[in-house]
Amino acid sequence: MSIEASVEFRVEFYDVDSMGVVWHGNYVKYMELGRCALLDKIGYGYNEMKASGYAFPVASVKLKYIKPLMFRQTAVIKAVLAEYENRIKIDYFIYDKESGELVTKGESIQMALNMKTMTTSFLCPDCFVKKVEALL
Amino acid sequence: MSIEASVEFRVEFYDVDSMGVVWHGNYVKYMELGRCALLDKIGYGYNEMKASGYAFPVASVKLKYIKPLMFRQTAVIKAVLAEYENRIKIDYFIYDKESGELVTKGESIQMALNMKTMTTSFLCPDCFVKKVEALL
Amino acid sequence: MSIEASVEFRVEFYDVDSMGVVWHGNYVKYMELGRCALLDKIGYGYNEMKASGYAFPVASVKLKYIKPLMFRQTAVIKAVLAEYENRIKIDYFIYDKESGELVTKGESIQMALNMKTMTTSFLCPDCFVKKVEALL
Amino acid sequence: MSIEASVEFRVEFYDVDSMGVVWHGNYVKYMELGRCALLDKIGYGYNEMKASGYAFPVASVKLKYIKPLMFRQTAVIKAVLAEYENRIKIDYFIYDKESGELVTKGESIQMALNMKTMTTSFLCPDCFVKKVEALL
Repeated sequence: MSIEASVEFRVEFYDVDSMGVVWHGNYVKYMELGRCALLDKIGYGYNEMKASGYAFPVASVKLKYIKPLMFRQTAVIKAVLAEYENRIKIDYFIYDKESGELVTKGESIQMALNMKTMTTSFLCPDCFVKKVEALL
Repeated sequence: MSIEASVEFRVEFYDVDSMGVVWHGNYVKYMELGRCALLDKIGYGYNEMKASGYAFPVASVKLKYIKPLMFRQTAVIKAVLAEYENRIKIDYFIYDKESGELVTKGESIQMALNMKTMTTSFLCPDCFVKKVEALL
Repeated sequence: MSIEASVEFRVEFYDVDSMGVVWHGNYVKYMELGRCALLDKIGYGYNEMKASGYAFPVASVKLKYIKPLMFRQTAVIKAVLAEYENRIKIDYFIYDKESGELVTKGESIQMALNMKTMTTSFLCPDCFVKKVEALL
Repeated sequence: MSIEASVEFRVEFYDVDSMGVVWHGNYVKYMELGRCALLDKIGYGYNEMKASGYAFPVASVKLKYIKPLMFRQTAVIKAVLAEYENRIKIDYFIYDKESGELVTKGESIQMALNMKTMTTSFLCPDCFVKKVEALL
């Protein structure tokens, strides 16, 4: 079983480049929409992270563009939790809403940063792990 | 006499919209380039502001678009200090670098926010006013 | 009577600056959300504009910031058609969703650009004016 | 031997997030600075691409964040041509300007899109390959 969250979004004019498609760098924003929804669902959003004494800076990002998104197209980003014990790895899938066709895939990895010691931890904080395991 | 600073910039692909011109919202970024250069020249950049106990949130912005900027065009933004005693008002002029033609005009107003009391001050801090007057 | 449209939006992490509030330039994006909804309601969105042989580049923008928007805050932008015969003037009002408090005001002016002759027209195209007047 | 180009840039306020570091999605813009400089050096920039009948949409992007970039930090992005015969693969290295320390690594892959047939070509156009080989 997996933990996932989906967010619908529409392509806005300011995200489209001179080729008439979403500029490839803007997909990182869509990934963030999905990631926020997923972490909210787990109950470990930005505020809970902070309260737990950790931040989770993004350590790496990958994006694979299959088909372009156009102005006014409605799409859905699905974020799936892929790893949670040592780091947070999330897989992303963007679909055209109407056809259900997969248009983009992505991945992000976040490391736990202990905000007191300002050191990277190779274990995610217990409170987060427990919340995840309660959902699995 | 006036205090002013100019910054040259080139239009990047990610700032251009599907009409082939800079998306109008991106000019606020160019204004920030000019404003940073002007405040640096005065010796009252972000760090000096912070050290003086003040922040200067932007209270209003105006932009008037005369001619579009295109991908790869080189332009110059000139920021001119228009008011400094009660608030910081800056006028902006964007020129095509080659022809010198004026393509955009702008204006920003910033109010002094006392970071201790978190109240807006209707007088700019002395240290800033003195730095400005030393240049006039 | 007036023609207006409202869009709800939530402040995303990527729109927030190092002061913890929405970077002032990002409000131009929120204005675009409101404008698109308003023009859609009139039945004169981007595609209808194009089909009518006109583009409507933004000629000027004004923004007045009253209170900052914070990460995760939910807000509503209301776009109100203020002029439509010689140019499109839209007034914008951003409210905190929960309290209904006004946090930002804005204004944009767009001129009709005839795409065949590439000249600015000082009259909006008939098809647009009729659509507006049918709603008034 | 390799073909490479470097561009210096400074971190602007609008690129910094509420953690006080460059928001991770903004590095895709820095990659574009490097890529444009590299393709210009080869003599195959956006205009030459277009004239040759091809576009080169980005098919994938990878970013690995080693250390954060802060407001006002000056950095250098180096773009290195890694593949050019079947597709354009570019490796990116971002260094702190002062210390020379590597802070971010990236990679982009672009496929040749024939603009007449709108089909992906698995060979880069001859004119591009010749320009590259003349520099090697």
